[in-house]
Amino acid sequence: MKIGKSTIPRTAISTSDEHSITVRGEDLCRDLIGRISFTDYFSLLVTGVRPSAADSAVLDATLVAIAEHGMVPSVQASRMTYAAAPDALQGAVAAGILGCGSVILGASETAGRMFSEIDEAAGEGGDLRGAARQVVARWRTAGQPIPGYGHPLHKERDPRVARLFEVAKDAGISLRFVQIAESVEGVIPEVVGKDLRLNVSAAIPAVLLGTNFPLRALRGVPILARAAGLIAHLTEEAVNASGFALSYQATRELVYEGLPPPAKGNRS
Amino acid sequence: MKIGKSTIPRTAISTSDEHSITVRGEDLCRDLIGRISFTDYFSLLVTGVRPSAADSAVLDATLVAIAEHGMVPSVQASRMTYAAAPDALQGAVAAGILGCGSVILGASETAGRMFSEIDEAAGEGGDLRGAARQVVARWRTAGQPIPGYGHPLHKERDPRVARLFEVAKDAGISLRFVQIAESVEGVIPEVVGKDLRLNVSAAIPAVLLGTNFPLRALRGVPILARAAGLIAHLTEEAVNASGFALSYQATRELVYEGLPPPAKGNRS
Amino acid sequence: MKIGKSTIPRTAISTSDEHSITVRGEDLCRDLIGRISFTDYFSLLVTGVRPSAADSAVLDATLVAIAEHGMVPSVQASRMTYAAAPDALQGAVAAGILGCGSVILGASETAGRMFSEIDEAAGEGGDLRGAARQVVARWRTAGQPIPGYGHPLHKERDPRVARLFEVAKDAGISLRFVQIAESVEGVIPEVVGKDLRLNVSAAIPAVLLGTNFPLRALRGVPILARAAGLIAHLTEEAVNASGFALSYQATRELVYEGLPPPAKGNRS
Amino acid sequence: MKIGKSTIPRTAISTSDEHSITVRGEDLCRDLIGRISFTDYFSLLVTGVRPSAADSAVLDATLVAIAEHGMVPSVQASRMTYAAAPDALQGAVAAGILGCGSVILGASETAGRMFSEIDEAAGEGGDLRGAARQVVARWRTAGQPIPGYGHPLHKERDPRVARLFEVAKDAGISLRFVQIAESVEGVIPEVVGKDLRLNVSAAIPAVLLGTNFPLRALRGVPILARAAGLIAHLTEEAVNASGFALSYQATRELVYEGLPPPAKGNRS
Repeated sequence: MKIGKSTIPRTAISTSDEHSITVRGEDLCRDLIGRISFTDYFSLLVTGVRPSAADSAVLDATLVAIAEHGMVPSVQASRMTYAAAPDALQGAVAAGILGCGSVILGASETAGRMFSEIDEAAGEGGDLRGAARQVVARWRTAGQPIPGYGHPLHKERDPRVARLFEVAKDAGISLRFVQIAESVEGVIPEVVGKDLRLNVSAAIPAVLLGTNFPLRALRGVPILARAAGLIAHLTEEAVNASGFALSYQATRELVYEGLPPPAKGNRS
Repeated sequence: MKIGKSTIPRTAISTSDEHSITVRGEDLCRDLIGRISFTDYFSLLVTGVRPSAADSAVLDATLVAIAEHGMVPSVQASRMTYAAAPDALQGAVAAGILGCGSVILGASETAGRMFSEIDEAAGEGGDLRGAARQVVARWRTAGQPIPGYGHPLHKERDPRVARLFEVAKDAGISLRFVQIAESVEGVIPEVVGKDLRLNVSAAIPAVLLGTNFPLRALRGVPILARAAGLIAHLTEEAVNASGFALSYQATRELVYEGLPPPAKGNRS
Repeated sequence: MKIGKSTIPRTAISTSDEHSITVRGEDLCRDLIGRISFTDYFSLLVTGVRPSAADSAVLDATLVAIAEHGMVPSVQASRMTYAAAPDALQGAVAAGILGCGSVILGASETAGRMFSEIDEAAGEGGDLRGAARQVVARWRTAGQPIPGYGHPLHKERDPRVARLFEVAKDAGISLRFVQIAESVEGVIPEVVGKDLRLNVSAAIPAVLLGTNFPLRALRGVPILARAAGLIAHLTEEAVNASGFALSYQATRELVYEGLPPPAKGNRS
Repeated sequence: MKIGKSTIPRTAISTSDEHSITVRGEDLCRDLIGRISFTDYFSLLVTGVRPSAADSAVLDATLVAIAEHGMVPSVQASRMTYAAAPDALQGAVAAGILGCGSVILGASETAGRMFSEIDEAAGEGGDLRGAARQVVARWRTAGQPIPGYGHPLHKERDPRVARLFEVAKDAGISLRFVQIAESVEGVIPEVVGKDLRLNVSAAIPAVLLGTNFPLRALRGVPILARAAGLIAHLTEEAVNASGFALSYQATRELVYEGLPPPAKGNRS
């Protein structure tokens, strides 16, 4: 069935013949394997060009920052899935990745979109704080949550934020989106009425948008990073199972608030 | 509901408090972000210790080798899923990862298990070729396919194999599992009756089992690597859609071999 | 980690003890197994009450209408996934379900939301056509596609539409949302500038919203229905494989539009 | 890329043209929508023929029996996923389905395979108990768990078992596989050394293998049934969130048994 207008699939990422594989114009075996790090290769795959040393340092830092934060919901979902289906590691990783949504982890992308709106609204040399106030107010009015601010555990600023900003500064990339992210933090008390500090999901686009990494691939960063963390958890789960213990604990205080069981006796 | 014996979940991977996150005994913000590559962090997460430079070089090489090979079935599945559900990048990545199974990509793990059996059967200083012949014959008798040999496109040796072996040699890691992998290649013609050459899925365990990377996490390598490739493809799909074109082409020669449509007319 | 305000999980769906399972206030073993159809049970699970005969007839009709439409993209994704990972049927079903997104299949829910807006805008006894014109125009202005109209194969009205409307009429349920759906069809040429006819994804909410089935569970109908179709396809795939043949055909006319392979020769 | 021998995809399930959709030789709109229940349609899709009334009654009973059992691990995984990614209902259903693996829910298929081996070993008129003893012992020797016996909550026989057997008897289908299932229950104490009673995962194949439902589609029954239960839970989650409360409770007694956090102070 023909859906949409295009009938010819196209790609600019890679091609191959019997003797070689070409990726983004480079020979995979001759030029890439053993000569490029996985992080740089990820960047090359996504953007089409090799990252600069600064771009690479920042991308590495964001991947390391978001890969692991203990037994968070997506890790629990993944470990429970693995406990039930231990033959299919890929299924348990997939279950964990499915929790990289708009509320958790996916907030990196949404925050990036908000920062881009502020960037455009301010224009070159413009008033970032004013633009931040205006954009955050517009999002609030539209009923959209402000992504990347506040954290259930790290009430003061998420400690990963300062470190990521430090890495960005040391690398010498553009700090414009870091400034935008801090402007948003500055206006949140007046616009939202709460003192919500930057968390890692806002810090990731704040630093990455100062590199060559594109806005539309932002959600890929937490997804790839979490895949690494999930694989570690599932490797642990295989020898030291916690999946069913987690599900047992989860329901110890479960309240059933439905209709009571029917009276015993034969069904009339 | 209590399933299994353990009711207390446990983990040795990470813990956190309001001000810090500890991963494998290191302070995430102070010691890891900006100081360790994503590949080394993946290794640290999985194994609990930082890899040596040699271990790291080999792990990087395997991740780069397997991340991307064009519009393979899992990429097609992922791009079709994204075309149908563009709001959920995580769902399209998950769909692609679900194709890392026993036949494709997951073969790395199965090949690693076969190599370990040969390693044990041979013992130190033993006859690798003899052990390979014996184990391969046993797998054949049990009806199990020999994982990691033969490739639909690369009829001679998959070009990634030689390059991975070269990286392993240059890094100075143990080459015992490379020798085992080549022993298997050597005995396949007599045992299987076909000349099947090493492909990348056998080369990955052949080099990784000479490092500190554990057998039971092997399937994680193609899964993590493919996540990177899938994110690149989905970033392309978002601006240059091929998902529906792929599905259109796929069915152009589709044969319907079921019952014919019923005769027209009112249903009696 | 505490995320959000609530720390006590609650459910009104079911509870159990060693000797019985209670679902929505009924005894599963005594009152439900063998006494209620799966469709009625699905309705009971979702809504908390047993459907009327009319509600049940309509729900059955929608599930049958949307379960299967040949080798559509989600079925292809599912069969390719199964070919690569035949040990994990659940993974292949999951991959197929992941294609029930906003563009395909998930349109049932979005169309239902649009119809509800029109219902409210018109009010009791109000002008449905006027309300339809106003809401469709508002969606267009906001850049949102009009869900459930037009079909790549069924250029005239999707044949399932008339049949579902007939079932709704015969069952005697409220036809208000059928009228709304037809009002939308009537105003599309003037508002959108194209003559797009009702397809099955709009017909499903048009009939279900006239029953006790809730708007917010609408996307569940195509998901559940497609699970049935996917299981049939995977059962066929297990004995009559097409997954890899689909992926082969899909790329026969693939255009590589990236950088050319690098020149041969030693890497300098 | 050509993988495997076949390059032409084939299907016997359905075909369509602009005006009609044919499924298993019937006209979807004329003969099926509004005229066949979803359960019968599922059976028709999978088997190619309409089920008898008896086959249909038994299939309905199994789907109802396994659709819902409260906040089990796959439901928890699904609700946590939905809490994190509420825009993608399909992703949360997929996450739940991924927990239908070899240990939980998928046991129906494995039990069915064991029963088929016993059926063949006994032959017509043969000694079922002897064959059961022999096959169960063989599975034990091979290190395979005996699927479908024992339950964490229902220590005596799972109450769904007796009810499913009653439905099968009332429907008048072949009870051979019920007898086989009970023979296995009878020999488990002597072979396994524990008194493990039939649970629902063994009862499902015990009754379905007496109908026209094929062994190789057995895992589809719990998958389809759980999809219905999951949709109900996610519909509840959307208005009465428990996903994050479950994850909070799950980790209240979490033990961190890894390396201690590093000493404070500047990194040297």
